[in-house]
Amino acid sequence: MSVTRRTTFAAALAAPALLAATPMPAAAQPAAARQAPGFYRFKVGTFEVTVINDGYNRRPNPAEGFIRNAEPAAVRATLEAAMLPTDHLDIPFNITVVNTGSDLILFDTGTGGLLAPTAGTMWDNLAAAGIDPAAITKIAFTHFHGDHVSGLVTREGQPRFARAELIVPEAEWAFWMGDSAPQQPATMVKGRFGAYPAERIKRIASTAEVATGVTGVATHGHTPGHTCYTIANGNASVLVLGDVTNHPAINVTNPGWHAVFDMDAAAAEATRRALFDRAAADRTLIIGYHWPFPSLGRVRRAGNGYEVVAQPWTTAL
Amino acid sequence: MSVTRRTTFAAALAAPALLAATPMPAAAQPAAARQAPGFYRFKVGTFEVTVINDGYNRRPNPAEGFIRNAEPAAVRATLEAAMLPTDHLDIPFNITVVNTGSDLILFDTGTGGLLAPTAGTMWDNLAAAGIDPAAITKIAFTHFHGDHVSGLVTREGQPRFARAELIVPEAEWAFWMGDSAPQQPATMVKGRFGAYPAERIKRIASTAEVATGVTGVATHGHTPGHTCYTIANGNASVLVLGDVTNHPAINVTNPGWHAVFDMDAAAAEATRRALFDRAAADRTLIIGYHWPFPSLGRVRRAGNGYEVVAQPWTTAL
Repeated sequence: MSVTRRTTFAAALAAPALLAATPMPAAAQPAAARQAPGFYRFKVGTFEVTVINDGYNRRPNPAEGFIRNAEPAAVRATLEAAMLPTDHLDIPFNITVVNTGSDLILFDTGTGGLLAPTAGTMWDNLAAAGIDPAAITKIAFTHFHGDHVSGLVTREGQPRFARAELIVPEAEWAFWMGDSAPQQPATMVKGRFGAYPAERIKRIASTAEVATGVTGVATHGHTPGHTCYTIANGNASVLVLGDVTNHPAINVTNPGWHAVFDMDAAAAEATRRALFDRAAADRTLIIGYHWPFPSLGRVRRAGNGYEVVAQPWTTAL
Repeated sequence: MSVTRRTTFAAALAAPALLAATPMPAAAQPAAARQAPGFYRFKVGTFEVTVINDGYNRRPNPAEGFIRNAEPAAVRATLEAAMLPTDHLDIPFNITVVNTGSDLILFDTGTGGLLAPTAGTMWDNLAAAGIDPAAITKIAFTHFHGDHVSGLVTREGQPRFARAELIVPEAEWAFWMGDSAPQQPATMVKGRFGAYPAERIKRIASTAEVATGVTGVATHGHTPGHTCYTIANGNASVLVLGDVTNHPAINVTNPGWHAVFDMDAAAAEATRRALFDRAAADRTLIIGYHWPFPSLGRVRRAGNGYEVVAQPWTTAL
C-alpha cells in the first residue's frame, strides 16, 4: 500500500511536463492530487544551495513518550500554541545540497524510503531539481541516525552514490563502530556504510573544513559525534543544523525539552542553548533537518526559548 | 531586460521534464538557476485548493512613503524584528484556485506580467499545477487594484479566460465605474473588464454565496467594495484574505498602520482588527494575497497586533 502511494507520487513527479501539457477538461473535475516538487533553491554568495524534502514521519500521540522531561499536558499545550494538531506530529526530513562550483555536496542522505511510507520522496525531488546522485562529489554527515544514513543504499542494499566521498565525523564513527553503541542501530549503521569501499570513507574532526567554504561545527549531544556544517561564501552563510533540534514546536520553543532521540540529553540541551544564543545574536540563517520545508530561517528569543522566523520564499535567485 | 529575464524563467518552468532528465555532468558545475514551481496544494474537505505564486514587487526604501502613520524608524524597526532587510521589501502576489468538483474558481487574476519585471509567473505556475485558464469557470474578485485585475488580459489586451464568469462585488464595481474614482486607475479597471462581454460579468453582494461552499465576507476599507471569500467544505474552511493586510511584517504585526494602498485607512483598520480578532479566536486558516508563498497560515495575537503562524508545508493531500 505504502509502496503504491510512493510510486504514484514518483510517477507524477517524474512526468511534470506530461501533466502540465494535459489541460483540464472544460467541465471542472478534481485535478490529479499532486503536490509541487519539494525542492527550494537559494544562493549563498556564488554557491547554490538546494533544500530537498524527503517527506515526513507521522508520530502518533506526541504528548506521550516523546519528551522525557515534559508532562503530556505541557506538550499538548505547546502544540496547540503552535496551531498544530495534538494527536499527531508530522516530523519532516530535509536534506541540503550545495554546489560550490568545484564540489556538489550532500548533507546526510535521508530515509532512503526505508523508514516510513510517507518518507522517501528525496529521489524524485532531487530529479525535479536537476541533481543527479551520481554527480555528488561529497556527502557530509551530521550523525548516523537511521533517517540520516539510510539513503546511502537502495532497498536491496546497493550504494546509491557512484562516486561521492563519505565524510564522517571521527567521534561519530568511533562510537557507532565501537563496542558501546546499542547493537541494533549499530548494525544498521554498519550495513549502510558497509556498502561502500573503505577508501571512500573519510574520517574528520568535527571542526574540520570538509571542502572550500564548508566547515564543521562540533555539536555533540544528540549523538556522540553530532556535527553541524557552516556553508560560507562571500559575506553570506547558512548553518546546516542537523538534529540540534527536532520539530521547532518541540525544542526550539522549549530548548530544555529532552526528546527521546537525544542520546546525551543534558549535553544536547547545552549545545542547543549555546548554539541558538549565538545564532539569535548573529541572525544566522539555518536549515533545520526536521523543520517544515523549506526549513530555512533564523531563530530569535521568545518566551523561555526561541522561535523560528522563516526566510520568505522567493523566486529570486 | 526584464522581458528577457521573465522569458528565461518561463522557458525553464515550461520544460521541467527536460531539465530533470538532464543530469549534471560528473564534474560539479552550477546548476541552472531555477526555483521550484510556485504552487502549493491542499484539501478543504473534498475541495482541492491550489495557491499560485505570481512573483513579487520590490518596493525600495519601505520606511519612507509606504506607511502613512508610522515614522521611518518604526518601519525599519519592524522589518528588522522580522529579520527582513530594511532597504527594500519584496511584496509577493498569491492567487487562489479552488476545484469544488463542479466549479474551478480563481480568486483575482494577478499582475498579468504588466506591473513589475519580477511578477507575472502565475501562468507558468498554473501550467506546472496542471490548471488550464480555459477551464476556469468563475473568477471571484476581492477588489480592483491593478495587481488583482491585470491578469484578465494579455499584454495585447486580449481576454485570457475563455469561459469564466467574472464575479464582482457590486460596491467595488459601482465605485470604479462611477464618477468619484480616481481617473487613471479607473481607466485601467475599465480596460481590463472591457475585454469581456457584459453578460459574463456578474455583480453580487459582498456577502453572497458565489458558488457552492464559497461565500463573500464584506471587508470594505482597503477599497470601497473589498470582499474576502470563505471556502468551506465538510468541517474545513479557508479564508481568501485579499488585501485586508499587505505584507505580514507591515500590518499584521501593526494592524493600526495605514499603508498607502488603503483607500479608506480608518475603515481598513477597523475591518482588519475585527476580522483578525475573530480569526485568531477561531484559528481560521487564511490565504494572504501579499503573504510570503505559500501564504497559508493562521493569525494569533502578539505584541500590539498579530503574527502569522504558517501552516507547515506537507506532501500529504
